[in-house]
Amino acid sequence: MGPGPSNPYPEVMLALGKPVVGHLDPEFLAVLDSTNDRLREVFATSHALTLPISGTGSAGMEAAFVNFVRPGDPVVVGVNGVFGERMCEVASRHGAEVIRVDAVWGQPIEADRLLSAHPSPSIIAVVHAETSTGVRNDIAALGAGKGDALLLVDMVTSLGGIEVEVDAWQVDVAYSGTQKCLGVPPGLSPLTVSDRARGRMVERPTSWYLDLNLLSRYVDGGSEGGRVYHHTAPVTMVAALHAGLGVLLDEGLEAVQARHASCGKFLQDGLEELGLELFAQAGHRLPQLTTVRVPDHLPGGMSEADCRRLLLSRYDIEIGSGAGPLAGQVWRIGCMGHTARRRNVMALLGALKEVLCS
Amino acid sequence: MGPGPSNPYPEVMLALGKPVVGHLDPEFLAVLDSTNDRLREVFATSHALTLPISGTGSAGMEAAFVNFVRPGDPVVVGVNGVFGERMCEVASRHGAEVIRVDAVWGQPIEADRLLSAHPSPSIIAVVHAETSTGVRNDIAALGAGKGDALLLVDMVTSLGGIEVEVDAWQVDVAYSGTQKCLGVPPGLSPLTVSDRARGRMVERPTSWYLDLNLLSRYVDGGSEGGRVYHHTAPVTMVAALHAGLGVLLDEGLEAVQARHASCGKFLQDGLEELGLELFAQAGHRLPQLTTVRVPDHLPGGMSEADCRRLLLSRYDIEIGSGAGPLAGQVWRIGCMGHTARRRNVMALLGALKEVLCS
Repeated sequence: MGPGPSNPYPEVMLALGKPVVGHLDPEFLAVLDSTNDRLREVFATSHALTLPISGTGSAGMEAAFVNFVRPGDPVVVGVNGVFGERMCEVASRHGAEVIRVDAVWGQPIEADRLLSAHPSPSIIAVVHAETSTGVRNDIAALGAGKGDALLLVDMVTSLGGIEVEVDAWQVDVAYSGTQKCLGVPPGLSPLTVSDRARGRMVERPTSWYLDLNLLSRYVDGGSEGGRVYHHTAPVTMVAALHAGLGVLLDEGLEAVQARHASCGKFLQDGLEELGLELFAQAGHRLPQLTTVRVPDHLPGGMSEADCRRLLLSRYDIEIGSGAGPLAGQVWRIGCMGHTARRRNVMALLGALKEVLCS
Repeated sequence: MGPGPSNPYPEVMLALGKPVVGHLDPEFLAVLDSTNDRLREVFATSHALTLPISGTGSAGMEAAFVNFVRPGDPVVVGVNGVFGERMCEVASRHGAEVIRVDAVWGQPIEADRLLSAHPSPSIIAVVHAETSTGVRNDIAALGAGKGDALLLVDMVTSLGGIEVEVDAWQVDVAYSGTQKCLGVPPGLSPLTVSDRARGRMVERPTSWYLDLNLLSRYVDGGSEGGRVYHHTAPVTMVAALHAGLGVLLDEGLEAVQARHASCGKFLQDGLEELGLELFAQAGHRLPQLTTVRVPDHLPGGMSEADCRRLLLSRYDIEIGSGAGPLAGQVWRIGCMGHTARRRNVMALLGALKEVLCS
């Protein structure tokens, strides 16, 4: 129940055990095509260029910037947590003129501030679900007001957990991670790119590995009459992702989101009943990632790290520490994917009660 | 029996099914530390900075260049196949002045030519085992003569299959892939960096994801009194790599290499007995990756692709097509990792005989 990886779905674990076939084997290519179809459903998009990047969510972030940023481009980045900070760093390494729009950690970023930060940004970038603070930033208003800019959104912790509407929100570039609400081990980063953004891709980005021009020739061979080998696709992880997306779509996206919402509320109510204070601003709290303030006084002179160690050693439950400047101040509790079950929340609340009230 | 992925060891498949724990869980960190120790054994090195990069072999190649190339640096690259070409492309994207040393595909590159290509290169880069041609380039003489340059070697297809001596050969930067002779699914790239090279790392490379300064703070937390989170490590794939390296070390590196050598010879002798012509120059043939010329006349007017499809559909055996300019001219047959068994070679030779002599 940390901030990810979550527990994978049983169907995902079975998929990991499938025989390894070649990355150009027709059997694998069918799985890859179907994975990309399923990703389109989960992202709620018809973007042709939708694929798993062969790296974790941070590789997705890098792919999102390296393929669209040219030196000197003005890029507006919303920062209200670690992953907004990371976006600034990644954009800047690729030569962007970064215009930061900061908000207090724990609070959402107002869309108007992002939209008015620069007269003609090439990109407006924001994190949908900030894993470091448990806050949701709203996206729809950004899409409506983006003008000529590309809208680039980090959906690492949101995809599969809360409502995601890439097309309706007019998101141009979005990436996610497998190890959060998709219930798949870490290792891949689902990415989707609008046709509009595709027309503005950097022709020869510094990264060969993440070059979407080259990757699209492998995943989307149809248009050029054949797949062109790029790198050896991580076939086992793709099979796992395929299975995880299958679980989500079988249960139904709305049902999955309702499960996340109900587990999150159950957890957040339970924490408040224990006398703990939630960190994220009400109305923008993520159900899948809850931040809670560490109490000032812990029993027996325990540190917050002692508490987490005790939860892990005695109860087999992992929760996360605060990230960045929130280290020592908050705990982060994930309730994502297969972990988002009422029984898990009950077990944690029971364990926390024993640890904090002993 | 394509050019990779190979069949994973059974122990590796079991490891994929282990529970997913957090990337900062002490249990996982112990597995990661042990994985890096095992990598040092297999690379035959004492390099402190030895770790699996969270991407496939091509991500390892990118990490090897992006962390050591500064704009305008003269970088000598040996090219006698697709992966030497790829090195030129990756080095050039990171601003290197690339000095190519070409050799005929199918023949090795002479060390003297690489050593005399530039008076003071910052890097000399070469592929140890060219997966596209089945040729071994010798490394030891390069280490002895490299002078002030860093020696950067692609060991994607060599590691675990033929002799690899990173320290004895004075290799500064080497990377590999999991899906070849290590018998693990694709998805990680083992990388090792000498202390000498570590002193010349680019301070803030364009890639954040592959930044070895940051990665070393996570994998090698000891020196600074704690691990610093970078990205969510792909815990499942690391467990699989750990298991695969365990199989190699239990069998013994010499025994594993002898198994690859004997299977390769058995295969190559068998192909010649079928009247086929081997492509790679004798004396520099890789046992783990055999290239053989496609016969001029195939029965029943079959194309070479028809032959491969028949092998796959009727016999469940994958072999690879020729890569790059060798497409249509050669087949590539892998005999790597768990696939390197006499029974597999027999099955392929029997199937090929039926297909070619029917």
